[in-house]
Amino acid sequence: MAAHAFDAAMALQPLGDGRFAGATSPAYANMVGPFGGVTAATALNAVLQHPALLGEPLALTVNYAAALADGPFEVVARPARTNRSTQHWVVEIVQAGETVLTATAVTAARRETWSVDELAAPDMPTPEAVGKPNMAALVEWVRRYDIRITEGAIPIAWDGSGDASRTTLWMREEPSRALDFCGLAAMADVFYPRVWLRRATRVPAGTVSMTVYFHAGSVQMSAVGTGWLKGQASAQAFRNGFFDQPAQVWSEGGQLLATTHQIVYFKE
Amino acid sequence: MAAHAFDAAMALQPLGDGRFAGATSPAYANMVGPFGGVTAATALNAVLQHPALLGEPLALTVNYAAALADGPFEVVARPARTNRSTQHWVVEIVQAGETVLTATAVTAARRETWSVDELAAPDMPTPEAVGKPNMAALVEWVRRYDIRITEGAIPIAWDGSGDASRTTLWMREEPSRALDFCGLAAMADVFYPRVWLRRATRVPAGTVSMTVYFHAGSVQMSAVGTGWLKGQASAQAFRNGFFDQPAQVWSEGGQLLATTHQIVYFKE
Repeated sequence: MAAHAFDAAMALQPLGDGRFAGATSPAYANMVGPFGGVTAATALNAVLQHPALLGEPLALTVNYAAALADGPFEVVARPARTNRSTQHWVVEIVQAGETVLTATAVTAARRETWSVDELAAPDMPTPEAVGKPNMAALVEWVRRYDIRITEGAIPIAWDGSGDASRTTLWMREEPSRALDFCGLAAMADVFYPRVWLRRATRVPAGTVSMTVYFHAGSVQMSAVGTGWLKGQASAQAFRNGFFDQPAQVWSEGGQLLATTHQIVYFKE
Repeated sequence: MAAHAFDAAMALQPLGDGRFAGATSPAYANMVGPFGGVTAATALNAVLQHPALLGEPLALTVNYAAALADGPFEVVARPARTNRSTQHWVVEIVQAGETVLTATAVTAARRETWSVDELAAPDMPTPEAVGKPNMAALVEWVRRYDIRITEGAIPIAWDGSGDASRTTLWMREEPSRALDFCGLAAMADVFYPRVWLRRATRVPAGTVSMTVYFHAGSVQMSAVGTGWLKGQASAQAFRNGFFDQPAQVWSEGGQLLATTHQIVYFKE
């Protein structure tokens, strides 16, 4: 059985000493370089493949230093500190001798504690009611997801009429793939640029830095399996060429799986 | 004139090659080790003091790998990638040969663009109406700020009665100090643990990772000067020993200066 395109895209060959060889995948091509979500997942994958790993991902921050060129790259993952129940990672992706991504990650042991979700998932019509994917596939990676926007779709008319930046949607990988940390890290980045929606104006934009907090562990992800995920994203401020984007991802049943934030460059 | 306690606390002596010597300050002592905000500011200060710096802080992520011991430490800042208008930094704080903090930062040139604040500041009574600081100084660093909570104060009775996690407050440094990137980074961390409020139960808690996005540049910070700042924080999920905390900081006039997020360990 052929590997899922996502697993192939983030596949790494260990080179020893925390170094791994990878390569960009045409299946996840973006406007320039690969979809940032799959690059984030690849950085995390180096941590997950590292022989010194303890615990499961809790926090991941990736900084996109440059667009990856199509072709091979190297990922370097280093456990900077290992505690009893947390481990701190520094990761870098290097291509042709130049750093193209810096990252940090925290892995941790999850324990049974008092727990509550404070932020409820938005009410949305079912994926079936929304129907077939309605996010235009402007770039190749979008075809790797079944994304059904329920609010805040990509504007049809670029007429400067926007007045809010919130998008809510259903999503899952296409073809389906059981949820895991890398898949969830990538899906934190599926939202198209908030500035397009807020201004109804299409300007060049690209993520500079993204952080993902994993509230779900592997047990909760297994329970989600290939089910639908609910996503929500909006911006808080657009200023001097950058905007932020807090976002949330819930299971179909309404359990908050991950919260994420990014800061995004935009032109003009 | 003596330096402000904050400037003294984050002061660094250059050792060459991006290495800087610093030391913890009793003025910012927390329960264990120093206030995390001042440690974050110190990491950022190494970037700001670095001779290769281009641009101004845009994003900062700090991961608290271990509590700092009282005494000296070394900060190492490395520009991993320098582009035309952004620069990517990897920072580490080392104490007695062990990594106690990992961090990444992005600095960038700010340009005039279309701008709008989407998230409005909460309506709050004036700082004068709220009156003297009402955040109990359980630890020394709290005395370095004038914090006036307008909603979601630290519970008076630890009776398990909590049902929401939102705190809104006024804050400024005490004595007053003109706003800058390091001061703002530190104030992103002033909110007491959300789990105390949500559960009205005081359990051990500590920040694991914090990210700050700076929407204000140095020009806007100069305009704020020593003025009051509005802050707001809440949690989205508490699960398996960790909760997250998105927060925002506005000027008194309602301009969004920074948005920030953290993931926090809690016991039980």
